[in-house]
Amino acid sequence: MEQKLRELKAKLREIYDIQSAMAILSWDQSTYMPPAAAESRGSQLSTLAKLVHGKKTDPALGELLDDLLVYENTQPYESDEASLIRVARHQYDKSMLVPADFVAKFYQHTAQTYQAWVEAREEDHFKKVEPFLEKTVELSREYASYFPGFEHIADPLIDNADHGMKVSMIRPLFAQLREQLVPLVEAVTKQEPADHSCLLQHYPKDQQIQFGLDVIKQLGFDFTRGRQDYAPHPFMTKFSHGDIRITTRVKENDLSEALFSTIHETGHALYELGIESHFEGTPLHDGTSSGVHESQSRLWENIVGRSRHFWTYFYPNLQQMFPAQLRGVSMEDFYRAINRVKPSLIRTDADELTYNLHVIIRFDLELALLEGNLRVKDLPEAWRERYQSDLGISSPDDRNGVLQDIHWYMDYVGGMFQGYTLGNILSSQFYDAALQAHPEIPKQMEQGDFTVLHGWLQENIYRHGSKFTAEEIIQRATGSDLTIQPYMNYLQAKYGELYL
Amino acid sequence: MEQKLRELKAKLREIYDIQSAMAILSWDQSTYMPPAAAESRGSQLSTLAKLVHGKKTDPALGELLDDLLVYENTQPYESDEASLIRVARHQYDKSMLVPADFVAKFYQHTAQTYQAWVEAREEDHFKKVEPFLEKTVELSREYASYFPGFEHIADPLIDNADHGMKVSMIRPLFAQLREQLVPLVEAVTKQEPADHSCLLQHYPKDQQIQFGLDVIKQLGFDFTRGRQDYAPHPFMTKFSHGDIRITTRVKENDLSEALFSTIHETGHALYELGIESHFEGTPLHDGTSSGVHESQSRLWENIVGRSRHFWTYFYPNLQQMFPAQLRGVSMEDFYRAINRVKPSLIRTDADELTYNLHVIIRFDLELALLEGNLRVKDLPEAWRERYQSDLGISSPDDRNGVLQDIHWYMDYVGGMFQGYTLGNILSSQFYDAALQAHPEIPKQMEQGDFTVLHGWLQENIYRHGSKFTAEEIIQRATGSDLTIQPYMNYLQAKYGELYL
Repeated sequence: MEQKLRELKAKLREIYDIQSAMAILSWDQSTYMPPAAAESRGSQLSTLAKLVHGKKTDPALGELLDDLLVYENTQPYESDEASLIRVARHQYDKSMLVPADFVAKFYQHTAQTYQAWVEAREEDHFKKVEPFLEKTVELSREYASYFPGFEHIADPLIDNADHGMKVSMIRPLFAQLREQLVPLVEAVTKQEPADHSCLLQHYPKDQQIQFGLDVIKQLGFDFTRGRQDYAPHPFMTKFSHGDIRITTRVKENDLSEALFSTIHETGHALYELGIESHFEGTPLHDGTSSGVHESQSRLWENIVGRSRHFWTYFYPNLQQMFPAQLRGVSMEDFYRAINRVKPSLIRTDADELTYNLHVIIRFDLELALLEGNLRVKDLPEAWRERYQSDLGISSPDDRNGVLQDIHWYMDYVGGMFQGYTLGNILSSQFYDAALQAHPEIPKQMEQGDFTVLHGWLQENIYRHGSKFTAEEIIQRATGSDLTIQPYMNYLQAKYGELYL
Repeated sequence: MEQKLRELKAKLREIYDIQSAMAILSWDQSTYMPPAAAESRGSQLSTLAKLVHGKKTDPALGELLDDLLVYENTQPYESDEASLIRVARHQYDKSMLVPADFVAKFYQHTAQTYQAWVEAREEDHFKKVEPFLEKTVELSREYASYFPGFEHIADPLIDNADHGMKVSMIRPLFAQLREQLVPLVEAVTKQEPADHSCLLQHYPKDQQIQFGLDVIKQLGFDFTRGRQDYAPHPFMTKFSHGDIRITTRVKENDLSEALFSTIHETGHALYELGIESHFEGTPLHDGTSSGVHESQSRLWENIVGRSRHFWTYFYPNLQQMFPAQLRGVSMEDFYRAINRVKPSLIRTDADELTYNLHVIIRFDLELALLEGNLRVKDLPEAWRERYQSDLGISSPDDRNGVLQDIHWYMDYVGGMFQGYTLGNILSSQFYDAALQAHPEIPKQMEQGDFTVLHGWLQENIYRHGSKFTAEEIIQRATGSDLTIQPYMNYLQAKYGELYL
């Protein structure tokens, strides 16, 4: 069995290595690649994608997993060995259900869709991408059809990002959240929004970057095992246990842009940096779900990074870095500025309070598309209606409406958005559990010490990688199932105090 | 046949794409990769290397090439189609001769050797790498043995870098060169070396980089298809027709370091940038040999970049960029400084005149090792002796002696060095041919116009990629075989005027 396990690990390592190579190519594409290289980079990625698909569906891998079934059953569920075999089998089984032809067809289709979306958005002309999106909905339904026995057609798609989650769980959860969120947003937005003009001064790029790097070093980002570069859209990516990278973008007339995106991506990075090193080269060496991943970016960005505790420590440093800009701006002014609430059209620019309404709109619309209850040609109008009813504003154009997010135009329709709001909900549930174990966390933050919080997350979430499902992680770490209560309590307390 | 040719191109494209991915991973390793990633990057590269070896020795590729033999023979030798099949077959045949086991064994051995070399050099302790180097010599001999029928044991190794070249051609050529070079160096170095203190002032990094970028833009580097980054050792690498990258390093107390390495790598880049775009994805999309490649880096670096014509145009710009440093330094002073001759220990720091002596020493020593006429344990001493006899100096330590170059410690012994001197020889032969066709080139350079020279190189060398061998390129472009005369004339005229 030792021998078989070694063979399994060797096969999984190949998959891991090719996927890492693809991640490096994609990172370079977003950071340094010269413009004329786009088409060839597509070919390189497509060649590697085919290779990795071949490895993932290699019958020899399936045989090994079959051979190891008995061994798996003799090992404790929580053991690394049983977990490795279990998770590898789950991924193998999923890969085998989808025909290679379909994968190739879908890959080709999304490359074209992405191009059409870029043009459609530039020209604010939804019709240009409409036929592609129609085809994407059709292919997304076809994808789901390879997983017979689902309750809802979106479930197999959701399962890809948030294994174990289903529409029958998420829909009522989001409805409940929306029910409590909409009146809170309404109450808050009746008040004058906080003055954030202190953020909108000229902040030189290099100093912004330096401050961000100082902050995340203190949060625990290990620069011997990662780095930050510029990219048009901030993201985190991992190439190996010793190579986890984040990107940011800077607006010289808006201090919050780079700073909070840097902390957000650092949250993702701390998760990946914290996975057991000996999981490298296996499917266990990965965050367990999109929801749990997002819980970490949002916990560090919002619960920590937009808190009074955090700024009690960092605000004097910030004032020292930008004395002219922040002269006469009190910490309280600054705190209110970074927690300003105002409904807006763009999800990625949204404040903490209205953000989930953006997500729930997208989630509901993608379900409607998959169910056949909404036609693609009616999507822009449906988008506008929901923005009007949920946020009280709507975009006259589609560029700032249905064309704003890349997700539906580079992947499936379905499974793309729920992780963001699951992450917000979980960020509070995890933070509360950490606080219960270590009530001293806020005081420590005020002294610039994040080690106890980081340690709790490391111990309860990060180190496990994909060994446990999201559901298992939540139960183990918090002692209960997923629940919106901690999150709603957090929002109500924070924004009640600020605005009501 | 159309169909077979398409199949061939598809197979070659896969190989090209995986090799490009490997180049991207290696580039990142030298530029941005965090230190903790080294081992995993090795694993990723090794996984891709195995995949590409599998593709290169795929029997289906051999069958396709067999099927296409008749077709090839119906096409003109110079046609793209015949050339593609011919070059692909040549590479396939070479790959097939070397057992996969040997490739894996050698790959593993060089990874260890490289590590041992890094330590040996740091500690100035040749013994540490000696057993590895002994093994490398043995494996290099084994490699050669897979190509029966060679004249000299180094020929198969030389053929990898400079296809068609043999010891029986290079040895007399280099002997002839050395014979003429040694007295010239002796005569020149009897004189006081030029004063180069103007180069050794403080030149801020950002301005040095900016000046270099301005220069290479004017030489024809296309920044929509490439970029420059920092690396500890400057190099050029290609990921696709639209993505050719160079690196540089800056010494703030030596203006010549970044400037001439940037122009050198740009010479390599202009070659790759100039290959027919429709060769992309095939083995034709590559410089034809290490000698021809090096001829381009040296032509642009030395014949152009260290000429009076070049600086007639650029020196006023340089003075404008660095007014304090270059106040009172005449163009003539500057020209003498950048053409200073002084024997030194390190090849990469050597001046134009002594550089080839460094190369010929290495070439002779690697032949002696392969022939069994020199034992690895006697190599450091042999190195010292040759430096003393050829350059009149020798290093008491090995760090600045036999341990200075990476080549023997990351690849075979043999075939690694001849390209540098072949390149120097060829740089003059090509330049003279260009000059004969376009006598106006020097005058144009004085006006900052490099288009005619670039155009001639493009037409006669660059565009062909690997379609023709080095020998064919030389014949076609210059009307004669490889000859050292233009190069010796160039050196004698330039350094005679400067020093004698």
